[in-house]
Amino acid sequence: MKAQRYGIIGLRRASASLQSTAPKIALPWVLARQIPLAGSFGNSNSSHGARRLYSQSPGLKERLSDAAQNEASNPAMAFPCLDALETRSATLEARSLSSGPEPAYTVGDVEIFRYEEPFLLDWGGVLPRFEIAYETWGQMNSDKSNVILLHTGLSASSHAHSTEDNPQPGWWEKFIGPEKCLDTNRYFIVCTNVIGGCFGSTGPSDIDPADSQRYATRFPIVTIEDMVRAQFKLLEGLGVEKLYASVGSSMGGMQSLAAGVLFPHKVGRIVSISGCARSHPYSIAMRHTQRQVLMMDPNWNRGFYYGKIPPHAGMKLAREIATVTYRSGPEWEQRFGRRRADSTKPPALCPDFLIETYLDHAGEKFCLTYDPNSLLYISKAMDLFDLGLTNQESAALRRQSGSLTEINNASCSLTLPDVPYAERTDTETQLDGSEISVPADSRPPQDLIAGLAALRDIPTLVMGVASDILFPAWQQREVANALRLAGNRNVTHVELSEEQSMFGHDTFLLDLQNVGGNVKNFLG
Amino acid sequence: MKAQRYGIIGLRRASASLQSTAPKIALPWVLARQIPLAGSFGNSNSSHGARRLYSQSPGLKERLSDAAQNEASNPAMAFPCLDALETRSATLEARSLSSGPEPAYTVGDVEIFRYEEPFLLDWGGVLPRFEIAYETWGQMNSDKSNVILLHTGLSASSHAHSTEDNPQPGWWEKFIGPEKCLDTNRYFIVCTNVIGGCFGSTGPSDIDPADSQRYATRFPIVTIEDMVRAQFKLLEGLGVEKLYASVGSSMGGMQSLAAGVLFPHKVGRIVSISGCARSHPYSIAMRHTQRQVLMMDPNWNRGFYYGKIPPHAGMKLAREIATVTYRSGPEWEQRFGRRRADSTKPPALCPDFLIETYLDHAGEKFCLTYDPNSLLYISKAMDLFDLGLTNQESAALRRQSGSLTEINNASCSLTLPDVPYAERTDTETQLDGSEISVPADSRPPQDLIAGLAALRDIPTLVMGVASDILFPAWQQREVANALRLAGNRNVTHVELSEEQSMFGHDTFLLDLQNVGGNVKNFLG
Repeated sequence: MKAQRYGIIGLRRASASLQSTAPKIALPWVLARQIPLAGSFGNSNSSHGARRLYSQSPGLKERLSDAAQNEASNPAMAFPCLDALETRSATLEARSLSSGPEPAYTVGDVEIFRYEEPFLLDWGGVLPRFEIAYETWGQMNSDKSNVILLHTGLSASSHAHSTEDNPQPGWWEKFIGPEKCLDTNRYFIVCTNVIGGCFGSTGPSDIDPADSQRYATRFPIVTIEDMVRAQFKLLEGLGVEKLYASVGSSMGGMQSLAAGVLFPHKVGRIVSISGCARSHPYSIAMRHTQRQVLMMDPNWNRGFYYGKIPPHAGMKLAREIATVTYRSGPEWEQRFGRRRADSTKPPALCPDFLIETYLDHAGEKFCLTYDPNSLLYISKAMDLFDLGLTNQESAALRRQSGSLTEINNASCSLTLPDVPYAERTDTETQLDGSEISVPADSRPPQDLIAGLAALRDIPTLVMGVASDILFPAWQQREVANALRLAGNRNVTHVELSEEQSMFGHDTFLLDLQNVGGNVKNFLG
Repeated sequence: MKAQRYGIIGLRRASASLQSTAPKIALPWVLARQIPLAGSFGNSNSSHGARRLYSQSPGLKERLSDAAQNEASNPAMAFPCLDALETRSATLEARSLSSGPEPAYTVGDVEIFRYEEPFLLDWGGVLPRFEIAYETWGQMNSDKSNVILLHTGLSASSHAHSTEDNPQPGWWEKFIGPEKCLDTNRYFIVCTNVIGGCFGSTGPSDIDPADSQRYATRFPIVTIEDMVRAQFKLLEGLGVEKLYASVGSSMGGMQSLAAGVLFPHKVGRIVSISGCARSHPYSIAMRHTQRQVLMMDPNWNRGFYYGKIPPHAGMKLAREIATVTYRSGPEWEQRFGRRRADSTKPPALCPDFLIETYLDHAGEKFCLTYDPNSLLYISKAMDLFDLGLTNQESAALRRQSGSLTEINNASCSLTLPDVPYAERTDTETQLDGSEISVPADSRPPQDLIAGLAALRDIPTLVMGVASDILFPAWQQREVANALRLAGNRNVTHVELSEEQSMFGHDTFLLDLQNVGGNVKNFLG
């Protein structure tokens, strides 16, 4: 390309002529050429490791002479956000030396269910025994037919509603009570902390009975299905043979579906809000970054931070990233816009815009209230979630064998089939046309349709929110479509539009009217 | 609520009766009650700091006796991803001891423009002098009327296309050349590294002439407008009085608009692709998390890592988070799905799913090729970007005063006006109705319409991509609408649908047909 050559030559000429005339005509600029040394990591001490073809222009030193000798051109920046982290580390270290640093994450009375047999997990691990913390509201009827199992999101405890013994408001306080969405006049509601958690149920912060040390990262990989199987041991303990309904949002929406798939004859109805039937790669990516930031905190210490300074900085930032995925752009546009926390101050690299101080605050509130290892294990369980038939069959195989040896079997691959879009079967085409009008390009994979076939006879409410980034609305459409294509004639699908809710994934915690109203109607 | 009380009493009774009968009927479970000690941070050594009302069930020890004494129930987890980071730290430390650790980020020949006067920045800082690295393609015509200034994204160098001296492919290799999108037979194309960057232009890794130390975080806050003002000093140096066009994508799309606003009589045409006229809080939030993760890396050392181990782990993870915002869910669904990197292995907390190894790889490739402080400063400049009139007036005021004292003035607030949605003016309603059919709810703030009034007579192409999360398509619609409402009759707005591109924000790097084609048509 001759054209290029000319361009460069032209500039080089310009450079030369300007250099020689610069002192005379006092142009403030010079054109020159930079040629770096071979390789990108040179040993030269010059800036950029580069040789410059110009000589230093006179006059510059004079211009700078009004600045004090050896004083920087600009002041150093302050980092109050890092100061705060260092202060907290020091406080936590002092506490660990004086009184042992372990927080009890549970903040009120809970019931405890203890299962004394070894419990084999889906990926081959074992819990020699486990406990489940749970709370209940309402009254169980005589034939135990009015029980609703309420599943939580990732970091929630069993405290969905205040109790006499723990009057603190729960995470679904306004959704539970007499004549509320979950009506305590009619239903007996059970909410548990999941296994792997830190609010009373067995998790990584607990003692491994085998060696009396904390599990830490010797805790086995758990799955959503493991959590549900443990919950059904509790139901067994309570003498409950069949749930009136399995209800949950977010991770709880995964569990709610998994309950029906694992125990189709023990689940009367399913409500799955802002959940999914298989985690998709974008959600995995967003959880991956949270786990990585936590694991990179040196205080995490590969999970063995108990008795030491916990990885509070990593936890804080993981929560900030999570918070970005919990809400939506339009909400923040209205709520924060481009306002700065203090517009009289110059911009800073520490939190500066109001949205940044909001995220910072969300991280601060969370960073010492949840066990970091629990976050890792439960976040991972969500990634592994896949109700497709292939994955279910692999898990069943591993459960039978009860050991890790089987997972080297090729049949256990989590890979989806090469041809996920199979032709419709006769059964499907016989269904009510209006219910199965699924456009070809949004047809769920056949593997998922087959995997949800167990829910064929269970009335199901699937809700999604258009502004949700973490569990986007197409995932709930996928669940509803897969259920219908699997032959379920009792699928109610509700999608809240951007106009109805701009609260993104968090809508299930906030929208009493749309979320609460639809759940109440569905439960009947 | 009496109903609740009954539920809890019922369970407590069950617990008592089961405890006494458990040894006989050998039920594997126990119901009990957990009462934590006062306060959430107890001193107790028991798990959860809680008192349990059950006694240890017999038989458990026997069940576990087949496991070796004092051996954990499950194996410890391996963390190859952390091992890799530690290995790299060690390598970098060894290098810094032997030969100085500073990489020359520039990887080939560039031209250098040097400006010898102190350059005052928008937020009151000063560069005693600066350099701009640039490259050119094509041939400048005799009246210098065929110059296109091409702006880069955050982390790109001036190397948009290969040159004779540097045959490596550039970041827009296929878009530049004879009869290409930017036609080197017709245009003389200039691409620069922005100030604040690390590819030859003055940035935080450079020496502050005032004290001969590296700027590090004593580098002043820069803005997008500062970058553009510096670029126009270069154009002055080249003798260019008016650009044929200002073209850019992503951050370059911001610069492209800013060039027109700052120098309306020096810009013939504007192309702004996947950019915006004001950063919105969601984008700020996503950049905030990247900056925070980098600043939390202990090796960042508040910016003073030169000569030591650079914060490679923080850089790697910052790039992983960025990569999540550069692509889209649908693309990853097709490309990676739920495939695991090695399905014969059990799940791990280190990268495991294919999408995770992809992110990990993206971080690996980047973490030593870009100066961490440059990332912080340029990322911050993007947050600060706002072409609204209020912000422009504040910046002009600060530029006049040339010092930080003015920024304490209330008139310099970055806060948007309380009533952003003003009535249309007569001028606007006189325009072609089809061009200004902006729905009331998507009408840009009046402050932005006023801020873009300077572009009234500049033909402008605004492109967006529906699958872009970082610079969502509504932002480019906002730019186009604001320009039209400001009276610009030559606005071309193109939005690529989800069907046209699922590559999200990265579309501008990849889509030769739709992006390249529209740019070529527009440039004429």
